[in-house]
Amino acid sequence: MNRSGTVHLVGAGPGAPDLLTVRAARLLGEADIVFHDALIHPDVIALCSGMKIPVGKRSGRHSTAQRFINKQLADAARRYRTVVRLKGGDPMLFGRAHEEISSLRAQGIRVEVVPGVTAALAASADLGISLTRRGLARSVTFVTPRVGKGERESSWVAAVLAADTAAIYMGAGEAAAICAALIAAGKPPGTPVAVVESASLPARAVRYGTLATLQAIAEPGEAPSVILVGESYAEAAAEAVLALLPRSASHRA
Amino acid sequence: MNRSGTVHLVGAGPGAPDLLTVRAARLLGEADIVFHDALIHPDVIALCSGMKIPVGKRSGRHSTAQRFINKQLADAARRYRTVVRLKGGDPMLFGRAHEEISSLRAQGIRVEVVPGVTAALAASADLGISLTRRGLARSVTFVTPRVGKGERESSWVAAVLAADTAAIYMGAGEAAAICAALIAAGKPPGTPVAVVESASLPARAVRYGTLATLQAIAEPGEAPSVILVGESYAEAAAEAVLALLPRSASHRA
Repeated sequence: MNRSGTVHLVGAGPGAPDLLTVRAARLLGEADIVFHDALIHPDVIALCSGMKIPVGKRSGRHSTAQRFINKQLADAARRYRTVVRLKGGDPMLFGRAHEEISSLRAQGIRVEVVPGVTAALAASADLGISLTRRGLARSVTFVTPRVGKGERESSWVAAVLAADTAAIYMGAGEAAAICAALIAAGKPPGTPVAVVESASLPARAVRYGTLATLQAIAEPGEAPSVILVGESYAEAAAEAVLALLPRSASHRA
Repeated sequence: MNRSGTVHLVGAGPGAPDLLTVRAARLLGEADIVFHDALIHPDVIALCSGMKIPVGKRSGRHSTAQRFINKQLADAARRYRTVVRLKGGDPMLFGRAHEEISSLRAQGIRVEVVPGVTAALAASADLGISLTRRGLARSVTFVTPRVGKGERESSWVAAVLAADTAAIYMGAGEAAAICAALIAAGKPPGTPVAVVESASLPARAVRYGTLATLQAIAEPGEAPSVILVGESYAEAAAEAVLALLPRSASHRA
């Protein structure tokens, strides 16, 4: 029998190694070979006892082409029993899982997906502010303004406008364009915003502001960021502004 | 010193015990007392070595009132060092975390949140179909049609219409109303739909259809369901219909 192994698409979670699921931790220990994104925490990589192959993708840097990753996964599944493709966050949300799953299935290779904690949920935990709230926020939209090569313009603006809360992934480098597009579409410039960089990690940074000040608070860096937009952040944003006021300002008032 | 303990709002994940995060598993073992939702897997409850207090909430049954839960959490934090409030899925998405956090913080009690894997991500893993897909689905909306007592009508319909993919939580019991509201708002009746019941558990059930047939496939039961809506489910839904056709139908053709 010439049966191939299984490729497990595994979510590594938002960053902190202990926000990995128990199943993901077990699979990393069992895998013959692990193909992992860049930016996975070294303590998570250390759980892998088999071969470890980095396959990109680091924002703005050279990364392994998707087609080549697909080929590597298929080749590994023909040689090994347990292959893990480890992805930051959750594999099914902005993870290009569709391309890997359909390529593998088309070759008769079994694929299993292990869900993970996605960045917007970790960011909300860091802030202590719920994405939903009775009477205020009952719909949450997850979008990315990133548009792939040769892809039609995304409908992300309409989705953000229609939802009570929005989580914008991979947007820190495009803050000016996000701000302009949303305000042009009718989102009030005063809409409260929170930017969470490196959610769940000790290096995490939280900045509050409004849609109008987004560019000033969303500093693009190496670290991944989530931009959260909505009235749920109003109170925290107002407190953050008050904390920045010099003492003399209240004296003068 | 009369310092109170910490209340940890912990996500239990979608159902399968090994989809708990490593941090959540550790906290359950350390907690002096755990207040848990109904429908948490017995193997997860078994990780708790301290006191275990069930506090609802089971759809359509008697459950502990939110205000009383808030009071129990505060009382426990004054007596114990580590208090866990264990919630199905992720605490910050449809979990009423806001009410618990603000009540506790107003009383000077420290709150920490541990994010979890939310049902829509587990359902997507079960289906092997990504919530996003280059060129087809770049925005995902998470909504619930449930409206709280005395709460204004939710904007969930507009949010679903504007997003490429929608995940509807707590909607299986209201399938007829969901179908009617979305079609009335202009969503095509032929929009592909997947219903995943008991995501991530051995008892999971997957049914495909269209918005027009939603009521027939979303059987409300004890088990929680997620309704997924969008063109990403077209292929799987078409295959499911073909599989249902009697052999004689193709013979006759």
